[in-house]
Amino acid sequence: MRDDPDVPETRRGRPTMNDVAAAAGVALKTVSRVVNNEPGVNATTAERVHAAIERLGYRRNDGARTLRRGRTASIGLVIEDVADPFYSGLSRAVEDVALDEGCLVFTGSSGEDASRERELVLAFCARRVDGLIIVPAGTDHDYLTPEIDAGIAAVFADRPPGAGPDADTVVCDNAGGARVGTEHLLAHGHRRIAFLADSPSIFTATERLRGYREALASAGLPYDEELVAMAPPGRARALADLERLFRLADPPTALFTGNGRTTVATLRALAAPITHGPPVAVVGFDDFELADLLGITVVAQDPARLGRVAAELLFRRLAGESGPPQRLELPTRLVVRGSGELPLRG
Amino acid sequence: MRDDPDVPETRRGRPTMNDVAAAAGVALKTVSRVVNNEPGVNATTAERVHAAIERLGYRRNDGARTLRRGRTASIGLVIEDVADPFYSGLSRAVEDVALDEGCLVFTGSSGEDASRERELVLAFCARRVDGLIIVPAGTDHDYLTPEIDAGIAAVFADRPPGAGPDADTVVCDNAGGARVGTEHLLAHGHRRIAFLADSPSIFTATERLRGYREALASAGLPYDEELVAMAPPGRARALADLERLFRLADPPTALFTGNGRTTVATLRALAAPITHGPPVAVVGFDDFELADLLGITVVAQDPARLGRVAAELLFRRLAGESGPPQRLELPTRLVVRGSGELPLRG
Repeated sequence: MRDDPDVPETRRGRPTMNDVAAAAGVALKTVSRVVNNEPGVNATTAERVHAAIERLGYRRNDGARTLRRGRTASIGLVIEDVADPFYSGLSRAVEDVALDEGCLVFTGSSGEDASRERELVLAFCARRVDGLIIVPAGTDHDYLTPEIDAGIAAVFADRPPGAGPDADTVVCDNAGGARVGTEHLLAHGHRRIAFLADSPSIFTATERLRGYREALASAGLPYDEELVAMAPPGRARALADLERLFRLADPPTALFTGNGRTTVATLRALAAPITHGPPVAVVGFDDFELADLLGITVVAQDPARLGRVAAELLFRRLAGESGPPQRLELPTRLVVRGSGELPLRG
Repeated sequence: MRDDPDVPETRRGRPTMNDVAAAAGVALKTVSRVVNNEPGVNATTAERVHAAIERLGYRRNDGARTLRRGRTASIGLVIEDVADPFYSGLSRAVEDVALDEGCLVFTGSSGEDASRERELVLAFCARRVDGLIIVPAGTDHDYLTPEIDAGIAAVFADRPPGAGPDADTVVCDNAGGARVGTEHLLAHGHRRIAFLADSPSIFTATERLRGYREALASAGLPYDEELVAMAPPGRARALADLERLFRLADPPTALFTGNGRTTVATLRALAAPITHGPPVAVVGFDDFELADLLGITVVAQDPARLGRVAAELLFRRLAGESGPPQRLELPTRLVVRGSGELPLRG
C-alpha cells in the first residue's frame, strides 16, 4: 500500500481517492496520476476526474504525501513570547519567507522557560518539521543533537545555543549597540549612568552589559555595581530599582535600559509619583511603537530583519548549502529623539 | 504495512523502529508495544528497548501516528498580521490554550488579502489540522464548506464569516463600544465629532460606524458624511484626512478613531506641524501599549480574551460538543486617561 497516494482517512465524511475513482468510473491509479500531475492520462479522462474531485470536495492529503517524500514543508519557530512586539515582528518576517518557500510555520512561545522550549522543539520534531528557528530560553541544547544528526536544520536567532550543537546563529551586535548608547550619554556629560536590563542568565542582557562596561572603561570611568540592576522586566521591579537608585549618595543622572520591555516599565515608573525626582536622561536598547511620540532615544535593532535573515539561512540549508555553522551579526542604529540628549545639569 | 507504527523515513540518518529492534535484539512488534505503552512486554526487555532508543536517538513520528488515528493534534490560526499587537495578543492566548490541550498551532498572516487567507486555510486543511481559528479577510467562505463537512472544526474570531458556512463566531461588541466612546465625547460638550476608521469592507469598521451613528442619533444630532473617513490606516492617509477635516467650514472638535492602528497614525499626524491647529479631543477604539503614558482615552477590547474564548470553543467542538453554531460577543470597556475629556472650548 505504500504506493497508494493517499493514507486511510478516518474522519467522518472526508472523500478519499477511492471515492473519486468510483465517482469518475476510473482506476485508482488514474486518479493518482491526475492529482499528482503525472503523464499517461488522456484529456477527457482527466476532465472527468477533475469534475469528480470538484463534486466530492476531494482534497489531497499533503501531510501523508510529504511524509512519504521525507519532507513536510513545515518549519517550527520557537520564540520567547509572540505577544512581545519584538518577537511578533520577527515571527511575521519568518512567516513571509516561509510562505515564499511554500512552507508552513508552527509557532510556539517558550515564555523564557527552558523546559517549555524543549517541549515545543521536540513536539515540532515529532511532527517532522524540516527545520527549526529557535530563540533559545535554555542553555543546554544537547537534546537537539539527535534531531540535527537526523537531518533537521536548525538556526538560532537572537541568542546562540547553549551547550550542545554547533548550529547556525543570527544575533545582533548587542555589545556594540550598548556601547554606542552609553557613549551617547557620556557625550552629553553624564558620568553616573545606571544600567537596567533583563536577567544576567539571558545572553543579550549580558552582552549589552559588556558594551556598557566597555564604554565606561574607554571613558576612564569605574564600573559601579550599585548602578546596575538586572532582573525580568516588570512594574514593581522598575519602581523598586528607581527608588533605590535615586536614594544613592551619588545617584544616576542618566539611565541605559537594556531592552524594550525594561524601557517601557522604566518609563512608567518614572511617571509614577513615587519616583519623582530630578529628570534623568534615558537611552533604551530596542525601538518600540510610539517611542517617537514619547521622544525616547533608542538603540534600534531590526526584528523583522533578524527573522528574515534567520529564515533565509534556514532555507539555504534546506536547499543543500553546506559548510560550517555560520554566525551572523546584524548592526544596530542609534535613533536620537530627545530623551537621551538631556544634558547633565550643573 | 498499515499496522506498522512507523512510516518509511527517508531522511538521512534518522533511526527507525527497525533499527531499534535490531539494536535491542527484539522483534519490531515489541518495540512498537514499548513505544506505544502497550502491555505484553516484560520489564527487562522494555529496559533493553528504552536503552536502544536512548542510544540511537530514536524519536516516534507523531505526524504518521496521528494521521493514522485521524487526528493530527494541530490547529491552524489565520490572523491579519501577527506583527500587529492586537493579533499577537490573540495568538498568544490561542497558543496557550492549544498547549494545554497538547496541540500545536500553525500560524499565518493574511495581510487583509482574501486570496492569501484562502491559500493559508487550505494549506492548513491539506495538513489535516483538526481545527481552524480564522480572522477572515475575505467575504466568501464557500471554499470552507467541504472542509467543515469533512469534519474540520472552524471558529471565526474578531469578524464573522462571509457567505458560506454557518460557523461558530466570537466577536466583540463593536457597535456598543463605539457608541459608548462617542457618547463620552458628546458628554464633554462636543457636537462635531469626526469618525476615522479602517475600510468599510471590514466588518469591525462598519459595526463601529453603526455605533457612532447610533450615539449621534440618540443625541438628536445629524450624521454628517464630511466628518467620516474610512480607509486602511497609514501615515499619509491620516495626514490627508486631518488636513481636510480641519479645513471644513465647521471643523471637528473631537475625533473618534476606529482601531489601534488608526489611533496611532492619527496621533502621529496630530503631532506633525502640518496639522497644528486647535487641540482636539480623541477617543480611540482598542487599547495599545503606552496609551497610558500618552494619556489616550480608549474603548478597550481584550484580544487575549478573544483568542482564549475562540480557542476554548474550538476545543469544546473537537471534544464533541454539538449544537447549532454559536455567536459570542465580548464586552468592551471605556478607559479614561485624559485625551477624551478635553472639553469643548468656547
